[in-house]
Amino acid sequence: MIAKKMEHLVANSSAIRAMFEEGNRLAAIYGKENVFDFSLGNPNVAAPEAVKQAILEILEEDPLAVHGYTNSNAGYEEVRKAVADSLNERFGTAFASKNITMTVGAAGGLNVILKTLLNPGDEVIVFAPYFGEYRSYVANFDGVLVEISPDTQTFQPKLDEFEAKITPKTKAVIVNTPNNPTGVVYSEETMKKMAAIMEAKQEEYKSEIYLISDEPYRELVYDGVEVPYLTKYYANTIVGYSYSKSLSLPGERIGYLVIPDEVKDSEDVISAANVANRILGFVNAPTLQQKVIAKCLDAKTDITYYDRNRETLYNGLLECGFSCIKPEGAFYLFMKAPIEDEKEFCQAAKKYNLLLVPGSSFGCPGFVRLAYCVAYETIVNALPKFQELAKEYF
Amino acid sequence: MIAKKMEHLVANSSAIRAMFEEGNRLAAIYGKENVFDFSLGNPNVAAPEAVKQAILEILEEDPLAVHGYTNSNAGYEEVRKAVADSLNERFGTAFASKNITMTVGAAGGLNVILKTLLNPGDEVIVFAPYFGEYRSYVANFDGVLVEISPDTQTFQPKLDEFEAKITPKTKAVIVNTPNNPTGVVYSEETMKKMAAIMEAKQEEYKSEIYLISDEPYRELVYDGVEVPYLTKYYANTIVGYSYSKSLSLPGERIGYLVIPDEVKDSEDVISAANVANRILGFVNAPTLQQKVIAKCLDAKTDITYYDRNRETLYNGLLECGFSCIKPEGAFYLFMKAPIEDEKEFCQAAKKYNLLLVPGSSFGCPGFVRLAYCVAYETIVNALPKFQELAKEYF
Repeated sequence: MIAKKMEHLVANSSAIRAMFEEGNRLAAIYGKENVFDFSLGNPNVAAPEAVKQAILEILEEDPLAVHGYTNSNAGYEEVRKAVADSLNERFGTAFASKNITMTVGAAGGLNVILKTLLNPGDEVIVFAPYFGEYRSYVANFDGVLVEISPDTQTFQPKLDEFEAKITPKTKAVIVNTPNNPTGVVYSEETMKKMAAIMEAKQEEYKSEIYLISDEPYRELVYDGVEVPYLTKYYANTIVGYSYSKSLSLPGERIGYLVIPDEVKDSEDVISAANVANRILGFVNAPTLQQKVIAKCLDAKTDITYYDRNRETLYNGLLECGFSCIKPEGAFYLFMKAPIEDEKEFCQAAKKYNLLLVPGSSFGCPGFVRLAYCVAYETIVNALPKFQELAKEYF
Repeated sequence: MIAKKMEHLVANSSAIRAMFEEGNRLAAIYGKENVFDFSLGNPNVAAPEAVKQAILEILEEDPLAVHGYTNSNAGYEEVRKAVADSLNERFGTAFASKNITMTVGAAGGLNVILKTLLNPGDEVIVFAPYFGEYRSYVANFDGVLVEISPDTQTFQPKLDEFEAKITPKTKAVIVNTPNNPTGVVYSEETMKKMAAIMEAKQEEYKSEIYLISDEPYRELVYDGVEVPYLTKYYANTIVGYSYSKSLSLPGERIGYLVIPDEVKDSEDVISAANVANRILGFVNAPTLQQKVIAKCLDAKTDITYYDRNRETLYNGLLECGFSCIKPEGAFYLFMKAPIEDEKEFCQAAKKYNLLLVPGSSFGCPGFVRLAYCVAYETIVNALPKFQELAKEYF
């Protein structure tokens, strides 16, 4: 008697989550140290000490102010101002507090902005491979997900196909850079071209096409790579951010949306996002964590930890004979499966207690995702297993 | 360019929220002590000291475990078990951890269960006066809200009209007891009759009708009144709970759903709720607060504070000549407006810096709601203003 829409979702529940739960099951049997769980993006670097210090300070404040409803569903005014100021300083933007809506993580923020924008049947373009949850988020508001096929050489967006697939019903385009699952960062050149295409199409169709930049991995980049701040390239850009990875707080559900003044009808969009935050049941982002954020804007997770993992895993897999693009950001590595059916490959890997997520979950079959936000030892100990696995194919 | 559905909502935004924001505006002009804001259910009793102690203890745990994703989207296994055990002890139920889904407050929980259950066009029955947000929550999933008109004498549900309005499309019935906005507690007798009606209708239509008990005010009752635990009276009962009021943590967004084994297809409902929690963007209830809850199951807010407010406000308003039913629970008082148009009355009250919410927001025009979760002094100082206001009418 559950809703029809949910039947399908329950049956196909998240492959990532399923693998993560399988990992816990295997760990109970073989011991945690003998299971190599690369399934979930659950950071293995602890939150910076600043988070703890911030909480201790906040606990000295008036508990009514700390744990009460915020005056606006968008969050504490002073927190929103602090976030805006920090962005302005880092990226040369000119946001005010009103441009910031604090959200229940990036997942909450994306649902808020899609609720705000989508009419039933509106199309939302995503570039494969993409975070599989976008499918559900768009379906929540009866939007239609339109996939751009992957360029499996560079994993940059295919702009020709993008241009061809924009229609008068295109309401939004979601980009995720640094990318989950590839770790690729979309270049400034790519983003300029993408913006030009969208400008032209808006003009052609007399429509508004909102670019939604989902960027929980913004701070996780390696080798000095720069991640362009997208509001500078295209006026109708809305940013969704999360502190899940940058401060290792994924369980706390804290992030924000940026809705700049340059966005068409920005006042309406901001008001509607405020209402959506409320009526979707978020009400407001968790208040204690909002206050933590304001105190930890300059705190950072330990990138060198992930970087060492990245180098070790990437080089190790290449030595085994596998091939993959070298990730420049996030903490994922997207490896080509040595056989066409990557789900079968994931099953084969499981024999060695190696837990990988099939690329089909990201709209990109033939590949598998490895989340390397794990203990370094997990990678070191997993590599001999990958070697055994490789021998089955090469 | 915002979604059509949102245009209407933005225009009519929450009257409660609007009044609350108006209160802040007036406070800036006249000084906080000269504005009598009875608009929002934002507790004025601080969270119990146990909350602070719990947080301090939890900060000594491994931050990866405290702030990371939970293994299941339903929350920490040990927290869910602790909640189940506590309910079993208090109410003689037999819940296991699997029957508990930790949620982003009751608002999050209601959205999760409505997403889980509703097909487009399914009917959800509510009893006026009711929390106005139900309208949006039901609309989020294309459900149809069916109102039962208020019994303005007792504010108990009108069971004749209820029985007549159940159709084969009735999927859920929401009750909220202790009630917002009346403070009335539905009696055991009422609930038994309601259950019998629903049983018979399920039989007649070969349908499942889920009773959703929204009970954030369960612990806030006065004069020793008992609030029946509804899963005992009707098998298809799902409970939504929040710690917003019982622990004064409304900003932290922490609550749970109870989906008992007795619920039809309970395994499917539990699985679907888990998925809904994820795809609606909640992902999981905030983790630090989940751990706080497990440590504070026996902590309580200071009910005597609200009780004194209740007595003082109720008696004071009667002395002014106003009439209202005496609340038995929650921290709201539902007063009859002395004129038919209660919105006009709210405007008149605003001249005295008295902020009230029109009953129309709760599907019950002709009345106004006063949230008395305010400082005692606010009530004492507001009563002379009510007296002046009363003189305009009596």
